[in-house]
Amino acid sequence: MKYIIGIDVGTTATKGVLYDENGQKVASAQRGYPLIQEKMDQAEEDPKLIFDAVQDVIFSLSQKRKITAISWSSQMHSLIGLDENKELLTNSLTWADNRAKNVVKKAKADGLAQKIYQQTGMPIHPMAPVYKLFWLKQEKPKIFSRVKYWLGIKEYLIYRLTGKLVEDLSMAAGTGLLNLKTLTWDQELLSQVGITEKVLPKLVKSSDIVGSVKEEYRQKLDLDENTKVIAGASDGYLSTIGVGAIDEADFAMNVGTSGGVRCLAKKSIIDKKAQFFCYPADQGYLIGGPVNNGGIVFEWARKVLLGPNESAEDFLTLAQSAPVGSRGLIFHPYLGGERAPIWDANARGSFVGLTRSHTKAEMARSVIEGIIFNLYDASHAIIQSAGKPHAIRITGGFVQSDFVRQMLADVYNLPIIAMKNSEGGTLAAMFLGKQALGLSPDLSGIRKFTSEEKVYFPNPENVVRYQKILPVYREIENDLAKSYEKLAYLQNKLQ
Amino acid sequence: MKYIIGIDVGTTATKGVLYDENGQKVASAQRGYPLIQEKMDQAEEDPKLIFDAVQDVIFSLSQKRKITAISWSSQMHSLIGLDENKELLTNSLTWADNRAKNVVKKAKADGLAQKIYQQTGMPIHPMAPVYKLFWLKQEKPKIFSRVKYWLGIKEYLIYRLTGKLVEDLSMAAGTGLLNLKTLTWDQELLSQVGITEKVLPKLVKSSDIVGSVKEEYRQKLDLDENTKVIAGASDGYLSTIGVGAIDEADFAMNVGTSGGVRCLAKKSIIDKKAQFFCYPADQGYLIGGPVNNGGIVFEWARKVLLGPNESAEDFLTLAQSAPVGSRGLIFHPYLGGERAPIWDANARGSFVGLTRSHTKAEMARSVIEGIIFNLYDASHAIIQSAGKPHAIRITGGFVQSDFVRQMLADVYNLPIIAMKNSEGGTLAAMFLGKQALGLSPDLSGIRKFTSEEKVYFPNPENVVRYQKILPVYREIENDLAKSYEKLAYLQNKLQ
Repeated sequence: MKYIIGIDVGTTATKGVLYDENGQKVASAQRGYPLIQEKMDQAEEDPKLIFDAVQDVIFSLSQKRKITAISWSSQMHSLIGLDENKELLTNSLTWADNRAKNVVKKAKADGLAQKIYQQTGMPIHPMAPVYKLFWLKQEKPKIFSRVKYWLGIKEYLIYRLTGKLVEDLSMAAGTGLLNLKTLTWDQELLSQVGITEKVLPKLVKSSDIVGSVKEEYRQKLDLDENTKVIAGASDGYLSTIGVGAIDEADFAMNVGTSGGVRCLAKKSIIDKKAQFFCYPADQGYLIGGPVNNGGIVFEWARKVLLGPNESAEDFLTLAQSAPVGSRGLIFHPYLGGERAPIWDANARGSFVGLTRSHTKAEMARSVIEGIIFNLYDASHAIIQSAGKPHAIRITGGFVQSDFVRQMLADVYNLPIIAMKNSEGGTLAAMFLGKQALGLSPDLSGIRKFTSEEKVYFPNPENVVRYQKILPVYREIENDLAKSYEKLAYLQNKLQ
Repeated sequence: MKYIIGIDVGTTATKGVLYDENGQKVASAQRGYPLIQEKMDQAEEDPKLIFDAVQDVIFSLSQKRKITAISWSSQMHSLIGLDENKELLTNSLTWADNRAKNVVKKAKADGLAQKIYQQTGMPIHPMAPVYKLFWLKQEKPKIFSRVKYWLGIKEYLIYRLTGKLVEDLSMAAGTGLLNLKTLTWDQELLSQVGITEKVLPKLVKSSDIVGSVKEEYRQKLDLDENTKVIAGASDGYLSTIGVGAIDEADFAMNVGTSGGVRCLAKKSIIDKKAQFFCYPADQGYLIGGPVNNGGIVFEWARKVLLGPNESAEDFLTLAQSAPVGSRGLIFHPYLGGERAPIWDANARGSFVGLTRSHTKAEMARSVIEGIIFNLYDASHAIIQSAGKPHAIRITGGFVQSDFVRQMLADVYNLPIIAMKNSEGGTLAAMFLGKQALGLSPDLSGIRKFTSEEKVYFPNPENVVRYQKILPVYREIENDLAKSYEKLAYLQNKLQ
């Protein structure tokens, strides 16, 4: 039997899944690593520790088996600098690192941020390496000038295993330096940053074979010269195709602690208000929005409105006892600022519309409705540009109950397909390996590896109610948005 | 020993207190009556039932004692119509009757409401008899044309006892028909309504003796020809002087279920934004704002955030555990719409500024802070016009804890005097009786009948914190106000 290892390089851990040649999961392994958050807005990781974790995972899965390919699903937007000997000069600045926020503020004011979005599809947010480069140049000019190679975490791991400096399009798109039209590094932006193409990895396809594992790691990791390292792709792209959302007909939505909605479009689409990203991929363009406030807000409400000892089940039961629309009580879920659809790190949560007859049950229900309204608005901008899908394929901890799934169907007015597989990332990485090895011709073959748990259809009466609430929800959000910055400033002063 | 009976004609009950000639309380009695709320926004009372209650109260207090005077503290803004024989044609339309709201909306749009406020000091609100008259003329033209005498509940009670149709200035001011400058019925407004001065009571002073009790009631109520009936005044005016707030140096604030802040100014003051009322009284002008959202909001939060079995004490303990300013969580207390300072019946409550680190304790504290911010803003408009007082004299169920009293001192940045006496209305009514009988020369004598429980001084650190929060609280309120009407409409549709 031959095997492919799909590796998902996450923010807090790397997970590997061993698949046999039929695409069946055989084993899995996971190793964690710390996030370094010593300063305000800092969120770094040590690339060496991640490489150690990856080696551990591969070794624990290879076990004298015939591993034909190692493929990758990776966290996006990280930035690492190497010196002329390709030794580390920096940690990995992860997507969660917000220190470039003032750079973004300035770039927004002078129009550069809008230009970057227009040219690259990268949203206006400090997570993008393009802003991190401006920030490093300004704040740490010595390190900036010593760096001879800039790359992300997946590129670093592939470099360590194979000696090759390559980056697939889906990851390159997340840097804010890849031109959406030419699919090459954007020369104009590079010169504005003050770098050249030479310091960036060579662009490849996700299903390209990068090469073989270097001698030293073959022995160490129990692999041989026939083990191919595949370029792999971003976790955003792979978790989308990994639930079978392979064209505009289906959107993929994952809501765990945070959430995201994505679809694979045939053409690149740019939004006037920069509400969604557009990242080129092997086949088509990944359009989508990452949402900060998913299950983490549900968890907050469970603890604050009920109590630390009450369960999620208790909270759902209470919420379910309130009528659809929570009798006009509106909740904005921005407890952790927000990315899509409003892209405002200072955004805050709110309950608006309270009357004396509102109960705890309605407060609870409004929280869940608010989380879903926000997911819907993140999707809505995409729907307006890419067209209405036939269904939404959902995964994640927040969408495990019939109640929440039905509410999604009612708010979206679309069939909601709850997916069984929650490991879309490694599954799709494995599938890239199959493509690379010539075992699968195109993306459509991935569907047979995915399976649906249940489909939820909209209730027309509830749809009408939610359609009445949504404009008011949006209008109030719009009014509140004017005060978010002042509110954040006040809260900072009151600390 | 001689006695004076002070009667407080409230919305749900009439309370009478028997005072001896030294001003000591000897006995009290109370009788309730129902509020008729059969239609949307209706809130009527049967004047005959109220007169029955008043007779019961007088009879239970007189008891063969030598009663030298009966004096009144009365609910304001009621309207009753009598026919040519002075028989009832309508119930009493109380201050809580909101059926004239569309009349007010129209009057606001065409500028009449602003003119009424400018000329009479009566806020723009359907509770004012002037708007009720327009409404009756439009909705019940037959009754309107049959009415030969319009009066309020106190005037009706005095008429029944003495046969005289008189109204003191403080009650007349609450009709919206009394000219602030001339202190006579406003001819221009009367003609706009379509009535003449003849249908309204004769204007008298609060401390005027109206006359003796009619023969039939002397026997029935155990009184004699020496019992004088005093004109009395509005409960707003009397509860103010009844805690010793007899000039601009002291404000009076009462917060029970709802609340109000008032002061007695030497001159009449009109606000550009119509945020407060200005009612002439015997000595000076009563400036103030009635606030809907007091202890009733505290009660709501206790039940919804804690639970129906938790006590007010539990809620205060929880709130007290959160830091001053609730870490920037802002609560607007408009659960029951609001009169002063925003005068918007569609206003709704809100929590704004939620982050993941906010706890139930901070939500609880923010509720109390929000109630007090709103009281402060109702006072603030008055302070800006009438000047800063030396202290605030407080009474009512909401202000019984050290915690709430200290918060008032910190938000107001003023000494807060908690008063012992909670029966300021009947006390001041009794005092009017003493003035009428020549036993007390002027208002300043009332101070010796009031007593202070404790004085609370501002904590400078907390003052600074609240001063930082208030502008943000106001700005957000201002932004939210744009959606109140839409929100109320939505909630109505979702019923």
